[in-house]
Amino acid sequence: MPTSPRKPAPKLEKNRLLRGQVWVESGGKAALTEAGADLLDQIQGCGSLSGAARRLGFSYRRAWMLLDAMNHRWPRPLVVTATGGPGGGGATLTDAGRHVLRVYRDLQMQLEHLLDTAGDPFEPLP
Amino acid sequence: MPTSPRKPAPKLEKNRLLRGQVWVESGGKAALTEAGADLLDQIQGCGSLSGAARRLGFSYRRAWMLLDAMNHRWPRPLVVTATGGPGGGGATLTDAGRHVLRVYRDLQMQLEHLLDTAGDPFEPLP
Repeated sequence: MPTSPRKPAPKLEKNRLLRGQVWVESGGKAALTEAGADLLDQIQGCGSLSGAARRLGFSYRRAWMLLDAMNHRWPRPLVVTATGGPGGGGATLTDAGRHVLRVYRDLQMQLEHLLDTAGDPFEPLP
Repeated sequence: MPTSPRKPAPKLEKNRLLRGQVWVESGGKAALTEAGADLLDQIQGCGSLSGAARRLGFSYRRAWMLLDAMNHRWPRPLVVTATGGPGGGGATLTDAGRHVLRVYRDLQMQLEHLLDTAGDPFEPLP
């Protein structure tokens, strides 16, 4: 199931932007962030970690560390790789990975709906 | 009007926590963050920037820079200080400051409601 890209933040008075983000922690460490979800999305799209890193402008090392952390902070890995190492073989989202990505994108949409609905809640400024 | 302290994040399966935050940007820079709102809260509570910094465990320099940035990124200052300088005189929230803090706390509560309502949306993990 494709996940939707983030909509731009609503534009408020004088370039003011209301922003927000959601993330998941496990044992006090980030288990899923916006960057992590974007990485899962790109892995799903291009089937390799090196390709996903390139599309996001991440170094391979950064992408690998981000993925490794995610894989260890959920009960089951979110991505399986065909071969390890910096050359990078194919990478595929597991059922758990697809599920986690889908639920996270849904939470993001709920947050964006909240921010859109709020409009420019600071106006009028006394 | 007193603002409420943040509730703890809802506890999910195996120490998993769903977290979120909202912030305001102006011209691409942070105009109000959680730390900024906490600083406004403490200034409101103790009437001085140095006291507020101490209560938050911020250095005076960090608190001053955070406040200075906030004051310049809204159409009107959020806090007025009786005397400047590192000694620090009294500091008081303006009408704009009280308004911005109240609206921000309300947005935070809406976000927390969203996260509470979501429960543990990742379970069951396939």
